[in-house]
Amino acid sequence: MSEHGATASDGQWGPPYLLYLGKAIDELAIKTARGLAFWRPEWCVGQYRHPDCRYSLGLADMGFAQARVAGANTMVVGNANAGGVLAPETVTDVIAALDSGLNVIAGLHQKLNDNPDIVAAARRNGRVLFDARTFDREIPVASGRKRAGHRLLTVGTDCSVGKMYTTLALERSMRQRGLAADFRATGQTGIFVAGGGVPLDSVIADFISGAAEWLSPDRNDGGWDLIEGQGSLFHPSYAGVSLGLLHGAQADALVLCHEAGRPHMRGLPDYPIPDLKACLEANLAAARLTNPNVKAVGIAMNTSRLESHAALSLCRTLSGELGLPCQDPVTMGVEGIVDNLLACCAN
Amino acid sequence: MSEHGATASDGQWGPPYLLYLGKAIDELAIKTARGLAFWRPEWCVGQYRHPDCRYSLGLADMGFAQARVAGANTMVVGNANAGGVLAPETVTDVIAALDSGLNVIAGLHQKLNDNPDIVAAARRNGRVLFDARTFDREIPVASGRKRAGHRLLTVGTDCSVGKMYTTLALERSMRQRGLAADFRATGQTGIFVAGGGVPLDSVIADFISGAAEWLSPDRNDGGWDLIEGQGSLFHPSYAGVSLGLLHGAQADALVLCHEAGRPHMRGLPDYPIPDLKACLEANLAAARLTNPNVKAVGIAMNTSRLESHAALSLCRTLSGELGLPCQDPVTMGVEGIVDNLLACCAN
Repeated sequence: MSEHGATASDGQWGPPYLLYLGKAIDELAIKTARGLAFWRPEWCVGQYRHPDCRYSLGLADMGFAQARVAGANTMVVGNANAGGVLAPETVTDVIAALDSGLNVIAGLHQKLNDNPDIVAAARRNGRVLFDARTFDREIPVASGRKRAGHRLLTVGTDCSVGKMYTTLALERSMRQRGLAADFRATGQTGIFVAGGGVPLDSVIADFISGAAEWLSPDRNDGGWDLIEGQGSLFHPSYAGVSLGLLHGAQADALVLCHEAGRPHMRGLPDYPIPDLKACLEANLAAARLTNPNVKAVGIAMNTSRLESHAALSLCRTLSGELGLPCQDPVTMGVEGIVDNLLACCAN
Repeated sequence: MSEHGATASDGQWGPPYLLYLGKAIDELAIKTARGLAFWRPEWCVGQYRHPDCRYSLGLADMGFAQARVAGANTMVVGNANAGGVLAPETVTDVIAALDSGLNVIAGLHQKLNDNPDIVAAARRNGRVLFDARTFDREIPVASGRKRAGHRLLTVGTDCSVGKMYTTLALERSMRQRGLAADFRATGQTGIFVAGGGVPLDSVIADFISGAAEWLSPDRNDGGWDLIEGQGSLFHPSYAGVSLGLLHGAQADALVLCHEAGRPHMRGLPDYPIPDLKACLEANLAAARLTNPNVKAVGIAMNTSRLESHAALSLCRTLSGELGLPCQDPVTMGVEGIVDNLLACCAN
């Protein structure tokens, strides 16, 4: 578990987790919980569902007290409701979980800490509340000072193309090879998976790069920090976050993430997806400001809209055009990208 | 006065102003007050100074009650102390000003609204407190939707090279020509000068571009919004803010601001100042995402480190090299830049 960011270790929240699904009405509602169950199954002791919940993560169903007995320390409330709002039944459930001795962490837009009843319940039970979208530490603005150690950053043609998945897949592959490699989380789901991190979209604008520097400090063990990217330099709503992260990360290596067949930038029908080569060049040019030696090491292609033969053919073509390994981390793994990373950036 | 942003009009603060200098010990301490006295002399009824204050803005010295009688509505506390902290004597003075019936506005890092004694004094006197570094309106993330009207944005090779001054000089020149032109403020001093705006460095990261869109909405009178730039795409601490502003502004015209002879990026001895041409190209390339027709229309050169003949010679050389008018707004005005703006971007 990371010692950086809003951490489990200093906040006393942390695994083992009970994953709260509530009345989840669609896949999006359980996205965070699914990420945790997939990437950190060893931390997840069970799931809590209402009788009418149509989704399951395949974990044991349990109540709050039962989860506590089973060893759960913290209940995780992900994107549980549309608009990030706390539904009344979620408030009731959160209070019941606190009364059963669980800490509660959430990634909702509406904060646990802004609900007086929830705050009172946490206090009377001596439990911790943690809102993953809150970042209120005092950190300095970025210094631009070169830090020790290796860093990789995932960047994207757009938002929600698989940057977190790719970064975690790289971590898994590198660890399986016996390398020191640590996922550094910049979004709410990633923060739960990592046990810490920075919710970069919630940081005050002047501190974006400073937060990225702070997330990935000097590292002297020869290992890699694998930093979860956010947004896209080509998304007109969020590019400021992406650029600040790119500068603060001081990445040695970039992996470009893309979803094949996406019709336009997320939420913006008038904005086309950028060309992959142009997007990669723009990211490299901007990244050189703080690390002139930055290299692109691979393309992570989300091919979920394609048939498997079309996906393979696309990856082969793009790999040839861009001179980089191109793989779908979900269906093809990331071994080619890791091979290239180690060949390009070793020592 | 702008109807946008954290405005005087909806907050009940606003001119006429009493400018608070306190014990100002250096030029920096009175920078905000000096900006107001220079750009909005008609709004400034006087200055308040401690006996040991070594600076003056040439305004009438007056006490709080006297200022109220003279018509002052609001006292302005600028960068009055090192580190943006409220000195004990400033707290005492602010409370005395409130007790005399003045509203108080400040641009300090430490907020008026975080000091219980100041808040209590405002409440008992029915006066308004306004912290220019606070921005807590709910605004949407940027839509990237094309807005009606003309926009100019100042961009910079670095921070603190004269972007606010240049933008205000452009406003003055255009208004003198009978054109509709409005300065749109993105920093604290600018907000006091404009009577409204957005403290862009204090916005939550996800909303940088959205704040810029909100600051400069559809405009149908044929006039220009002149948007104050922030930071630099080449400053490793703040480039995220600059890029978000560039995208949200959807500028038709850019003016590049530069300080001749600056040895390195502000606060970062290891970071060189970017080449002007490369800086301009990078800004144009990024700006094209939301406005493909963006043009560079001039260079505003801060030549305060140069002799006047060297300054003239430099501007002439750069103008030839870049194919744009190049002027020091302080010593040469901005008429050449406005001429070019109107020639390039009319109708």
